[in-house]
Order: sequence, then C-alpha cells, then structure tokens
Amino acid sequence: MHVLVNAATSADGKLSSRRREQIAISGPADFDRVDSLRADSDAVMVGIGTVLADDPHLTVNESTSVAREERGDPSHPARVVADSRARTPSDARIVDDAATTYLLVSEAAPTDRIKALRETGAEVIVAGEERVALPEALSELESREIERLMVEGGGELIFSLFEAGLVDKLSVFVGPLVIGGREAPTLADGEGFVDGFPDLSLESVERIDAGVLLRWRVRP
Amino acid sequence: MHVLVNAATSADGKLSSRRREQIAISGPADFDRVDSLRADSDAVMVGIGTVLADDPHLTVNESTSVAREERGDPSHPARVVADSRARTPSDARIVDDAATTYLLVSEAAPTDRIKALRETGAEVIVAGEERVALPEALSELESREIERLMVEGGGELIFSLFEAGLVDKLSVFVGPLVIGGREAPTLADGEGFVDGFPDLSLESVERIDAGVLLRWRVRP
Repeated sequence: MHVLVNAATSADGKLSSRRREQIAISGPADFDRVDSLRADSDAVMVGIGTVLADDPHLTVNESTSVAREERGDPSHPARVVADSRARTPSDARIVDDAATTYLLVSEAAPTDRIKALRETGAEVIVAGEERVALPEALSELESREIERLMVEGGGELIFSLFEAGLVDKLSVFVGPLVIGGREAPTLADGEGFVDGFPDLSLESVERIDAGVLLRWRVRP
Repeated sequence: MHVLVNAATSADGKLSSRRREQIAISGPADFDRVDSLRADSDAVMVGIGTVLADDPHLTVNESTSVAREERGDPSHPARVVADSRARTPSDARIVDDAATTYLLVSEAAPTDRIKALRETGAEVIVAGEERVALPEALSELESREIERLMVEGGGELIFSLFEAGLVDKLSVFVGPLVIGGREAPTLADGEGFVDGFPDLSLESVERIDAGVLLRWRVRP
C-alpha cells in the first residue's frame, strides 16, 4: 500500500486554531490539487478528531467524479476513519451513502456503537485492543483492494502513522498566516518523537496560491 | 525599528521535541546564513525559555566579528533576553562579557535577581507589570540605537511579538524531519490567535541544505 499524507498548515505549522475551527489556509489552486489527489486515491482517511471537528464529506468534485466513473472506478474514493472507540456520529456526512466507508475501531469500541455504525452501511474493521492497530487495519484495507491511501489529518492520526512507519509521502501546503498557540493542533501531534525522527527527502517545492507546497518523501 | 524573526522548524512546525533538547534541523549553509543575519543586526533577541533550555551565546563567528570591527561596529551584536521575572542565571553564557546584553524584565521581577544580573554587567530594562511590555521595551532598545533586531525564538516570545504587531519579517528554514508531539514547542506558541491572524506575504523560497528557506513579510 502507498500512503500519502496531505495537509495545509500555517507558516507556524498549525492545522487550525486552539478552537479547532476550520481556517482558510490555502486557496482555489490548492483545492483543485487536493481534489485530484483524492481522485487518484482508492481511499481517503481522517482521524475521529477531524470527523468531530469538521464533519467532512471527503468526496470529489462532480466533474472529477464523472471522470472516475468513465474509467470504471467508483464515483468517489472510499472513506476511512481511524476511530478507536467508534465515536463517529451515525449522522456524520462521512457515513452517508455517497461512497463506501470503512471505520477502523479497536476492541474497546462499545458494541452498540459498532452496531449503529454498521446500520449506516459502513464497514467496521476491528483491529487492536485499546487503540486501532494501524498496521493490521491498513492490511485489512489492502485486502479490500485499497492500494493508494491518502490521509488528510488530523495531527493525532498523522503522528500515529509516522510512529508506525506507514507513511511514504508527505505533502504540506504552507499558507501565508500565523495561527500560534501551544494548544493548537499541528501537523503531527501525539506523544512526539524524542529520537529516531522520521527522515524526509525534499522532492519538490512549488509556489501555489499565496503559499508554497512542499513535497517530501519519507526515507525508509 | 525593524524586527526579523528567524527560526528553523521540522516539516511539522516544531522547534524541538517535547524534551526541549536542541535538535539538528538545518545544516552548514543555514548556519552561515544565520551568522550573516546576526552580523547585520544591532541586536539578537531570545526568550527566557531558550536561555534556560539551550544557554545560547548568540555571538557571531570569528571572521564575521573581524569584519564587524573593520566597519566600526562592536565585535558582536548586542544580546537581548525577554525575561519577565529575571530568571536568567547569573552564569548564563548570554550575560558574559563577549557583547552588550539587555535584559527586559517586568516590575514583577525580584529585586535581588535584578541586582545579581546588573552585577554581570548586563543592562536591565524594566517595562510592564507582570510580563514584559514588548512595545515599550523595544522602544527603550531603539533609544539605545538598536534599529535592526533579529529574534531567534522561542515560540512563546515569537507569539508575543506577533500578538503585539511588532514583527516585520519572518524567515523559516523548514528541515527534512518530523518531530511531532502536542507538547513540543512550535514556531509560535502562547495563547494563539482565534481570529485576526497575522497575514503574511511570501517573498522568497530557496532550497538550502536538505530543506527550504521560506521568507515571509508581515502585512501591516
């Protein structure tokens, strides 16, 4: 499986303010770029924090959807939520019927929540005891023919994927603003590394909108 | 006064790990660049957190120092610490006799600490009640002929300067690693903005060492 993490941060590395509201960081050229990345992915993944904060739909634009159908793909890539305790609301946009949805939960998820989420039509994959075991969960996705996975955040999920050594590429759009805040979510949160930092190689630098897109490859 | 903030961050916007140890983020080309920026500044400023964590000297290289002397400047730029409660240790490298040092403290700083720091030869400037009043303190520095101020961190000081609207330029070297950590220091910490985010304009993008240097101008 190929895992690409894509995010937009302020010049100081924040995904949002301490209030976790959505903030306009990029612009129309970057939105188009993100849409093509989604279009070329088998699935798009977010963490439960992002579902609860933003209620994202994670679908592609209509013209992109038509192009996917024309080449024999589903209208939209599948959607994946890393959701250890199955907290995704049953009326979240991500579990509507626009696309296939996989919910990755742990054994600690309440059975009534799992049942409620299965009733939305989503497929629930159980892996790990207290928290989702990402290597195992991603293998399960791979067995369902998900080869190209795009990850759109948040910082907790992104850190966990780096910690598990599962990230191949990292694209960051750095936008023209300062958000600040020691409590504000960053591109990679979690416990953080204190040594053995993931080592990156800068593949390209491109100015788009009023910011810059940095494309990194993760060294094995 | 012209205020330039300069820092090196990981690809995820961190200045250091949650342990606040110094981490190699940039390389020799960036070290040379930082040395020239210091050489062209009247003073180099850090916050007390950086003094306590790293004990920086903030002087320039020997050849740079000779060049400064040849043009009639002091061997090194002055050093400035934003240190509301006068916690700079009396044996910190930043208060040695290599260069002039200004300690910006608040009225809440203990008088015995102020006395001890004055005995090191540093000049103590009192501004603000509980925390240093940065606009007033920077005006005091300006009256001492400090026109070009370079700020090297950390994230608390950088946020406070943005909050006070005192930053003219921001240079960020983004290095090829992920540090992660919701507790790790970032380029701009503090309370953070929730609206009225400082608006930047991207002046240049340059690949150096194994990373990229982003130069931003702060829009008025």
